[in-house]
Amino acid sequence: MALRGPFSRILRSKLGSCSQQTRAESVAVLGAPFCRGQKRGGVEHGPKVIRDAGLVERLSSLDYSVHDFGDLNFPHLEKDEPYMGVKFPRTVGAANKLLSGAVSRAVGAGHRLVMLGGDHSLAIGSVSGHARQCPDLCLIWVDAHADVNTPMCSPSGNLHGQPVAFMLKELKDKMPEIPGFSWTKPFLSSRDLVYVGLRDVDPGEHLILKNLGIQYFSMRDIDRLGIQRVMEVALDHLLGRKQRPIHLSFDIDAFDPSLAPATGTPVNGGLTYREGIYITEEIHNTGLLSAIDMVEVNPALGAGSEAVEATASLAVDVIASSLGQTREGAHASISVIPAVKSDTEQLCL
Amino acid sequence: MALRGPFSRILRSKLGSCSQQTRAESVAVLGAPFCRGQKRGGVEHGPKVIRDAGLVERLSSLDYSVHDFGDLNFPHLEKDEPYMGVKFPRTVGAANKLLSGAVSRAVGAGHRLVMLGGDHSLAIGSVSGHARQCPDLCLIWVDAHADVNTPMCSPSGNLHGQPVAFMLKELKDKMPEIPGFSWTKPFLSSRDLVYVGLRDVDPGEHLILKNLGIQYFSMRDIDRLGIQRVMEVALDHLLGRKQRPIHLSFDIDAFDPSLAPATGTPVNGGLTYREGIYITEEIHNTGLLSAIDMVEVNPALGAGSEAVEATASLAVDVIASSLGQTREGAHASISVIPAVKSDTEQLCL
Amino acid sequence: MALRGPFSRILRSKLGSCSQQTRAESVAVLGAPFCRGQKRGGVEHGPKVIRDAGLVERLSSLDYSVHDFGDLNFPHLEKDEPYMGVKFPRTVGAANKLLSGAVSRAVGAGHRLVMLGGDHSLAIGSVSGHARQCPDLCLIWVDAHADVNTPMCSPSGNLHGQPVAFMLKELKDKMPEIPGFSWTKPFLSSRDLVYVGLRDVDPGEHLILKNLGIQYFSMRDIDRLGIQRVMEVALDHLLGRKQRPIHLSFDIDAFDPSLAPATGTPVNGGLTYREGIYITEEIHNTGLLSAIDMVEVNPALGAGSEAVEATASLAVDVIASSLGQTREGAHASISVIPAVKSDTEQLCL
Repeated sequence: MALRGPFSRILRSKLGSCSQQTRAESVAVLGAPFCRGQKRGGVEHGPKVIRDAGLVERLSSLDYSVHDFGDLNFPHLEKDEPYMGVKFPRTVGAANKLLSGAVSRAVGAGHRLVMLGGDHSLAIGSVSGHARQCPDLCLIWVDAHADVNTPMCSPSGNLHGQPVAFMLKELKDKMPEIPGFSWTKPFLSSRDLVYVGLRDVDPGEHLILKNLGIQYFSMRDIDRLGIQRVMEVALDHLLGRKQRPIHLSFDIDAFDPSLAPATGTPVNGGLTYREGIYITEEIHNTGLLSAIDMVEVNPALGAGSEAVEATASLAVDVIASSLGQTREGAHASISVIPAVKSDTEQLCL
Repeated sequence: MALRGPFSRILRSKLGSCSQQTRAESVAVLGAPFCRGQKRGGVEHGPKVIRDAGLVERLSSLDYSVHDFGDLNFPHLEKDEPYMGVKFPRTVGAANKLLSGAVSRAVGAGHRLVMLGGDHSLAIGSVSGHARQCPDLCLIWVDAHADVNTPMCSPSGNLHGQPVAFMLKELKDKMPEIPGFSWTKPFLSSRDLVYVGLRDVDPGEHLILKNLGIQYFSMRDIDRLGIQRVMEVALDHLLGRKQRPIHLSFDIDAFDPSLAPATGTPVNGGLTYREGIYITEEIHNTGLLSAIDMVEVNPALGAGSEAVEATASLAVDVIASSLGQTREGAHASISVIPAVKSDTEQLCL
Repeated sequence: MALRGPFSRILRSKLGSCSQQTRAESVAVLGAPFCRGQKRGGVEHGPKVIRDAGLVERLSSLDYSVHDFGDLNFPHLEKDEPYMGVKFPRTVGAANKLLSGAVSRAVGAGHRLVMLGGDHSLAIGSVSGHARQCPDLCLIWVDAHADVNTPMCSPSGNLHGQPVAFMLKELKDKMPEIPGFSWTKPFLSSRDLVYVGLRDVDPGEHLILKNLGIQYFSMRDIDRLGIQRVMEVALDHLLGRKQRPIHLSFDIDAFDPSLAPATGTPVNGGLTYREGIYITEEIHNTGLLSAIDMVEVNPALGAGSEAVEATASLAVDVIASSLGQTREGAHASISVIPAVKSDTEQLCL
């Protein structure tokens, strides 16, 4: 039905804008065990449980060459007082600086990137690192929350509620100079961003979304339009004028809490499993996905190990579907229906 | 996206038909701890668990002036023999008479009313009291059941399965004179009623729905049309000719039992959380909602306290959404993106 | 809304192609306690738990004359070595031969057939037996899996993943002569088959689906089109040229595992309860349903008795809905709204 691998390769080779080298069908996995963008411990173990749920094996079964670069080793800062209400600014800044470099190198080396968080403040490093290699990228933010508070607006001061504000050029003069973030500056235009899944938006965020004319699809919009129409409009908005690399930043709390209980800020009425998979299938089918963040899986939350495993397994499904796993199947590995053979020479698959 | 508060006020001030005084943005909460319309004990504690789930705080956060009038004190009747198979007719009649007066006074005083049941027989008092102040009201009945059995049709004799039959003018000559109900008479035309969520309809009810040409949307209709189209047709049916006050009578068993387990007559295949919220968002967006019943939350049912809390919390979400809580956020409280301030004068929100 | 019983009868009497006798409104229930088409014990107890969930009572309440023929007694074969990787070929072949005869007799006797599995390999016997009486039948296969592997393609060698390959004329020369199956030969054209619910399709199966141009609707297609459009296209594909008997082969694993946990090969992202019911309502509304398989309910799986009961109860709902149970109600048993009677002569229903 949808064009897959070969079409992807043609599109990517035509892009050219992102990196010089032709992109291999290789995936880099990068763990980012970090929790200082929010207050609940445990999210730093997200990379471990997602790997334990079989990520690398699954991606390998999709015929990728998978390079697991392990976990980043983030610096511990002894003293990191809040600044303008922002908590752990230097710690979050330093972690993201490290991550940004690692992501830039991985993308530069021709890998598609899978970053495993950790909390969503890590998107500052991940998207900026990706943008260093692919300055024309666009961003799809799948999340219950808009994460676009400025320090002046944030009700909590947690940086995982603010990453997008660090990226948007249009918010440049609304952002103070936060210690720890001198290494980065806004790089994304508000028209290069689409949200999907919003259902808990702070007043300041709502004002920013409206004032900047950001394209967003709340759960209400999904209820009104259906997920297929939402994705059609979203992708047309981002790619209609120009084909370009996609960064998918996926907060597991976009899903309904019944599906993804092991996360820090669950909100009722989220995406169904099928909607989440449909979103990623559509993104895969563009042939333009270049990097994925999978964040906010917190194994310390959720009622017991089953809840944690369900959440981690869901994260793996999302990543695999983003990278080409299909529900209708595929037969790349086989091109003719096997003929009848004698009992002794059974073959196929 | 949708017009909210200001638009509501304009519409309501134009209405005039319902009450003389301009309506303040105030909400009256009225508890109705009553269970004699059905056979399962516990539903009389519905008002308590819905309040405990934070109803008043939630409505206050929406900038309403909330007046909690506490629980009504229903009379206990020593002797109340069944009449024509109808159980507890005098007890249910007396309770509804009391409720009708209280609702009429609250609406007359300019409040929007939130009635917390108790079982759904209470709608007789609630809708009739509302109609005394707003005779041109229309009724949206969200429920797994049609609750329109007459005493002659009712398989069970429970009055919570019959309230609508007491309201409809077209059923006047099909209704016997039940002891306890001499204080009320039919006041609603069948064209002023819409059902949403039906999936367990008795044969006599089905005949009434068809014979009276009542507009109803079963779960099958929702599956066929989608909830957005259902609400479009439903609201056009009720409001297309004339803007007028809406009474929303919401039985929590409209939701799927997996979401609302703590209720007396659960039926599989119910509304999703998102459909329930969408229904109430659409009703809110008309600017015409005047009264809400939230009934059949029964904390004695459901497997444990988690099930009860989930059900009560869902009831609060429905009421809050009916009264303007949005999923896409709102920024009434803030009109400019806050400028950068020095560290010492952090503000906003 | 939808035309029911009377319309069904007219259509069936017009058919004539299937059997000489006019079809009575009788249903034959046939248990097939068989598990050798796969490796997990327990599925042979499917007939018992589906009956225990009230199947016969439910169908009787729909005004059918229900004939429960009990369980088939399948032969036990001492020695049954794999053949070309196919496991238990002679055992599965013998069971299906027996079943095929029983189904043929039941359909020939004018019953609508309900076959309770057992694993899905039983469809070989059930559909072939049905086809002996109704050679122009069409087949609707509701399942997470396509079950169309040939022995040469099958990753597992389990015959419950291969039944459709035994039926399709187009696969005749791709099928070896499996011991135990000399009694049957392909009888179905690939254009007479529609799949609904696929989400775990093996590479060889995908190739067969594509090469043979089989009409199938994966979960992705349901997400794209909606279940109402899927059923519209599916039924038009099968019945657009000619009205003819329908065989519905329903694997309970078509449902999401959260709804049908007690099954052997669950796959996330399945049908909702409402989609499953909608599918069967639409099939019933054609008036052409002639036989149903309900397979892969395995009471030995699922976490505890609640999970098993939920799965079995779901199976009953699917069968009842296929045979005319409606969500919007029905009033065949009552034709006028009952008049008011004195207290002493209460009647109705």
